[in-house]
Amino acid sequence: MTIKLLSEHLSFGGKVGFYSHFSEACHHEMRFSIYLPPQAQTKSVPVLYFLSGLTCTEEVFMAKAGAQKLAAEYGLILVVPDTSPRNTGIIGENQDWDLGSGAGFYVDATQEPWRSHYQMYSYVTSELPTFIHQNFPTLPDRQGIFGHSMGGHGALVCALRNPEQYQSVSVFAAIAAPSQCPWGQKAFTNYLGQDQTTWQAYDATELVKYQGFPRPILFDQGTADTYLKNQLFTEAFLAACELANQPLILRYQEGYDHGFYFVSTFIADHIRHHAEALYAIADKTS
Amino acid sequence: MTIKLLSEHLSFGGKVGFYSHFSEACHHEMRFSIYLPPQAQTKSVPVLYFLSGLTCTEEVFMAKAGAQKLAAEYGLILVVPDTSPRNTGIIGENQDWDLGSGAGFYVDATQEPWRSHYQMYSYVTSELPTFIHQNFPTLPDRQGIFGHSMGGHGALVCALRNPEQYQSVSVFAAIAAPSQCPWGQKAFTNYLGQDQTTWQAYDATELVKYQGFPRPILFDQGTADTYLKNQLFTEAFLAACELANQPLILRYQEGYDHGFYFVSTFIADHIRHHAEALYAIADKTS
Repeated sequence: MTIKLLSEHLSFGGKVGFYSHFSEACHHEMRFSIYLPPQAQTKSVPVLYFLSGLTCTEEVFMAKAGAQKLAAEYGLILVVPDTSPRNTGIIGENQDWDLGSGAGFYVDATQEPWRSHYQMYSYVTSELPTFIHQNFPTLPDRQGIFGHSMGGHGALVCALRNPEQYQSVSVFAAIAAPSQCPWGQKAFTNYLGQDQTTWQAYDATELVKYQGFPRPILFDQGTADTYLKNQLFTEAFLAACELANQPLILRYQEGYDHGFYFVSTFIADHIRHHAEALYAIADKTS
Repeated sequence: MTIKLLSEHLSFGGKVGFYSHFSEACHHEMRFSIYLPPQAQTKSVPVLYFLSGLTCTEEVFMAKAGAQKLAAEYGLILVVPDTSPRNTGIIGENQDWDLGSGAGFYVDATQEPWRSHYQMYSYVTSELPTFIHQNFPTLPDRQGIFGHSMGGHGALVCALRNPEQYQSVSVFAAIAAPSQCPWGQKAFTNYLGQDQTTWQAYDATELVKYQGFPRPILFDQGTADTYLKNQLFTEAFLAACELANQPLILRYQEGYDHGFYFVSTFIADHIRHHAEALYAIADKTS
């Protein structure tokens, strides 16, 4: 499988790289960015996947979150996939900002016209990790996942469904109960169809009721987030976690909104959360 | 004079605000961003001005540099003006990316059609600081200035011509001898005219020969910067500083390029450079 380096930039002693490769899952070229910390020049290190929000590309998090400084300190590879396939030729893929391009919602679509390319769940949880491990100096059994907004939804779903694959999970302002909110309902109806029983496999608030994550989930949510009430449903996820005895560190951050000024303020706590889990496990078993 | 708040975002315990106001110097609405650190809620603090590079708006530095974390630690207000007036109606203002909109070059234009609006030197060194001091909790005699690329040129020129106004200056990948490079020659010819003697007042390599800055200039330059050889002329500025005995801390950063992955890697050193100067002076005189 070919991998194409699009650009590369030194950052905090390591390297940010932008790549494209052909995805078998999505039957299409996909892009991702990767940060290799200085430690990766001499040894294999854990990988932390970041899933981005609606309209984002693989570039936004690397440019705005300020994560590389922390990843360099702790010795973590960061990988940021794009939020959907792009320019697939699917009619209407660029019509709405909350469906199609930039809005893959990290599901495997079953409905036309999306199912031929929109297989983001398989791409993110299976194909991309395999590809990263084959091409970069990773510790393949040390993986964390986190995300923002739509990507927070994605990170929770990936972690809850694959607790053996990910040792740590955290989210910023996640769409925490997508079956209940307009963004999620629109995406799931189009990608998964009208039968809402098929939605449960991609809804963290449903999943957590019967599929726990063995370590605490870190969840930051700004109180001035304009999407909090109508799209994110943080309280529904909190209630489900309490019912299921799922450890959850939910922090309401007073006055913070939905964007990257919020994410960058608390990124250090998140990277530390993952580093502790990923390196504690590595230390115990090495 | 009216000031319009466009948006506001909590960031590292302080606030990023985007504002517009009518500039008398530019005879036009101008935008700037400002970061108020947590300390500014209870006292007046020094101000550090950042001048951005070609094509940038007042948003880019705030979104990508990671400066707010450091400004919050040290207690500095950050102010980032836009790089030019915009939508002035001047014919051709949006035609080139290196002239007109996004490319004001921090000069007071004397030539048609630019001179009616492109008075960025007066705006940045005089009108904007006065406006900031009137509207925000500043220590008006504690000011630093820094910048990137075209904004590095601007910061050097502002500091060298006004050493009593700015207590500290630093630059990233500055266009250090604009009279000698294609970007500078194009801008100066259009804004200032063919008579190159008028260019000297806006060329750091010329200015430093007879107008020193009383404290060391911090200058970071990536060695993998594709503009280094043909546009930046770092070595010409270094030679002029040596001739003039101007203290210069020039650091060639091995392998770093021209963009914000470079800037963000070294931003902490720059903020510290300014904080030390601005607070050392404040401590001595208070």
